[in-house]
Amino acid sequence: MDYEAFFGAEIAGLRGEGRYRVFTELERRAGAFPRATHHHPEGTRPVTVWCSNDYLGMGQHSDVLAAMHEAIDRCGAGAGGTRNISGTNHAHVVLEAELADLHGKEAALLFTSGYVSNWAALGTLAARLPHCAVFSDSENHASMIEGIRASRAERHIFRHNDPADLDAKLRLVDPARPKIVAFESVYSMDGDIAPIAEICDVAGGHGALTYLDEVHAVGLYGARGGGISERDGLADRLDVIEGTLGKAFGVHGGYITGSAKLCDFVRSFSSGFIFTTSLPPAVAAGAAASIRHLKASGAERARHQDRVARTRAALTRAGIPVLPNDSHIVPVMVGDPVLCKAISDTLLDEFRIYVQPINYPTVARGTERLRITPSPLHTDADIAHLVAALSLIWARMGVERRAAE
Amino acid sequence: MDYEAFFGAEIAGLRGEGRYRVFTELERRAGAFPRATHHHPEGTRPVTVWCSNDYLGMGQHSDVLAAMHEAIDRCGAGAGGTRNISGTNHAHVVLEAELADLHGKEAALLFTSGYVSNWAALGTLAARLPHCAVFSDSENHASMIEGIRASRAERHIFRHNDPADLDAKLRLVDPARPKIVAFESVYSMDGDIAPIAEICDVAGGHGALTYLDEVHAVGLYGARGGGISERDGLADRLDVIEGTLGKAFGVHGGYITGSAKLCDFVRSFSSGFIFTTSLPPAVAAGAAASIRHLKASGAERARHQDRVARTRAALTRAGIPVLPNDSHIVPVMVGDPVLCKAISDTLLDEFRIYVQPINYPTVARGTERLRITPSPLHTDADIAHLVAALSLIWARMGVERRAAE
Ligand SMILES: Cc1ncc(COP(=O)(O)O)c(C=O)c1O
Ligand SMILES: Cc1ncc(COP(=O)(O)O)c(C=O)c1O
Repeated sequence: MDYEAFFGAEIAGLRGEGRYRVFTELERRAGAFPRATHHHPEGTRPVTVWCSNDYLGMGQHSDVLAAMHEAIDRCGAGAGGTRNISGTNHAHVVLEAELADLHGKEAALLFTSGYVSNWAALGTLAARLPHCAVFSDSENHASMIEGIRASRAERHIFRHNDPADLDAKLRLVDPARPKIVAFESVYSMDGDIAPIAEICDVAGGHGALTYLDEVHAVGLYGARGGGISERDGLADRLDVIEGTLGKAFGVHGGYITGSAKLCDFVRSFSSGFIFTTSLPPAVAAGAAASIRHLKASGAERARHQDRVARTRAALTRAGIPVLPNDSHIVPVMVGDPVLCKAISDTLLDEFRIYVQPINYPTVARGTERLRITPSPLHTDADIAHLVAALSLIWARMGVERRAAE
Repeated sequence: MDYEAFFGAEIAGLRGEGRYRVFTELERRAGAFPRATHHHPEGTRPVTVWCSNDYLGMGQHSDVLAAMHEAIDRCGAGAGGTRNISGTNHAHVVLEAELADLHGKEAALLFTSGYVSNWAALGTLAARLPHCAVFSDSENHASMIEGIRASRAERHIFRHNDPADLDAKLRLVDPARPKIVAFESVYSMDGDIAPIAEICDVAGGHGALTYLDEVHAVGLYGARGGGISERDGLADRLDVIEGTLGKAFGVHGGYITGSAKLCDFVRSFSSGFIFTTSLPPAVAAGAAASIRHLKASGAERARHQDRVARTRAALTRAGIPVLPNDSHIVPVMVGDPVLCKAISDTLLDEFRIYVQPINYPTVARGTERLRITPSPLHTDADIAHLVAALSLIWARMGVERRAAE
């Protein structure tokens, strides 16, 4: 087999579909967020980032950076081992306590990313609970899908955010079997929010474990940043709350929280937890500082919601099609990969505005979009500039102006 | 189902087998490696670490720490997104170039860990090469095994480091089918080294891609730290060289290197690469500084080999059973999980020496061991103290004194 020819042909196929990905090389600027430096083949240029998942700008917060500096000076660069073999640092233990407290759970378990936390935790639970059946929301993130696949457990996909369909699917499985219901609170691409209470009611009626991914909600919702489950007083209805340290908390890593026994079980049996170098102490210390700050301060969350509302309203007034939702994610619908990339390129080249085009497989074909994420640090002038640029492009490229359905 | 009772029973089972894992809570001390602070329930205590995979102490190297500090000041804490969506930082691009150069390859691709790099790269290649068959060394690491499993490709396990058995297994598969031969250079638990040239000869004869995990060799072998493949002049025989930034390089993260097309293919199709927040710029910058230093300096490697030889000789003279090998890993064989933990506990409590016991599933049952990893920074006095302590324990506990076979 000619491997090089095969790889080349597959890549050519992506190009043909207009969904070959070109990464935008940035240099973040601490203290200047959402400003960054774009490393372009023709030289560096300043840009305003409108698609970061550092939702609150905590990646430049002085407490976070100070904690990281301090940990590097004290403990050095890496952890030096897996959690079991010389790689459990004091900073990991402190962070796990902070996370358990954040979600009001007995315990927490750190992973090297949110992706790995979903993959490893769901993979381990579904594989080891004898004859387990998993019920997975149809819009679940790739990391959950891969975890469920890895487990080889029987999988049932229920209609997105549909407790009635979940109930119907649960009814078909022997009540005595162990079951897991896996879903997200805020879905990252449409920004819609799950009916958590109703899903927990249904799951509880069938004796299923509930597993909630709060990756796009932790830090952002709830009085202490515990996510939608905290905001709605539902944390104790969930057996596992999973989250990331790489989005609103502004650093890196992932975790689950749950009962002490559940966390100890995953800790003891999960390949993806056991056989990998643990996070650098400085990453753990930075994340803990971020969580601590956002437990005490609601100012970032309030300002964030204000910026989101203002951005959404201004886009809507300008006739730019924004998908409505109740979260902080502002999807501007385009519906074509080539057009989506052309709009993004024009924003960047002409207006120094960076919004990455979102194409298949991240979203379904025909729903290509610009996913805009306002932060507390986007000014009124930034919003006006974004809306003016999009209006101009919409007019010039003849993109339809309509309310997204 | 009573989930808590199930988790509790499984954990009790581990305790009953003597292989319930208790993590040793350390606080690394930059500048004092291999000294660390042990956070014990009864207070903190100084210890000497003898089981770190920060093999060269690069986790405290001033170039590495300076690069991390500088990147935090310049770019902040986290990357703020996935590689595609605002998360490609200049530091990632620079690091990938450094890695491609390290192994003399056209391209490199960064992952959040070595585990994820194996899982994602093997998973993607084996799943997407049409009707691929994978030939996997029987001692391959969990991350490769999981990647191959995830691919659902046909899997053939060949006898450890046995090119003749590999050849026999390759013969049974249609010559026209794509094939991958996956193996490691230095095996982490026994410290033995693969016959890379012979394996490449066999793989080449059957038109198979060669995939080499150099996780326990990068930074440590070869004139520039390119691993065993560099030392033996074999890098160009390998289609993929995979490595970690979390062991000899002292920081965190993983990577593959290979042809530009192969890396672009994995970049474009791999779920574990695409759907996760990229590494913090400071982690990438620290790793690049470490690689750069170890490309230019052989002093750490020379001193490392000297310390390894001295430790091994002293243990052997004292009749402590060391598994012979040609690498830097010094396995002291115990062969029983309860005894292994008892020896480790005594080393820690009485002698302030930290060597984690290695039990199943990390090694096969009956081969439980203390895995000792000398570093350039262990002194003659440290070695003498370690050997004296083990001699005393061996005598007191009546452990057999013999050469390991
Ligand atoms: C819903 C969801 N879960 C999990 C993840 C993975 O988290 P991380 O970026 O920390 O790997 C992501 C995105 O990256 C996500 O969108
Ligand atoms: C052979 C081998 N490959 C891969 C890995 C994973 O690398 P990382 O620790 O960077 O996840 C390890 C150990 O952790 C290993 O021993």
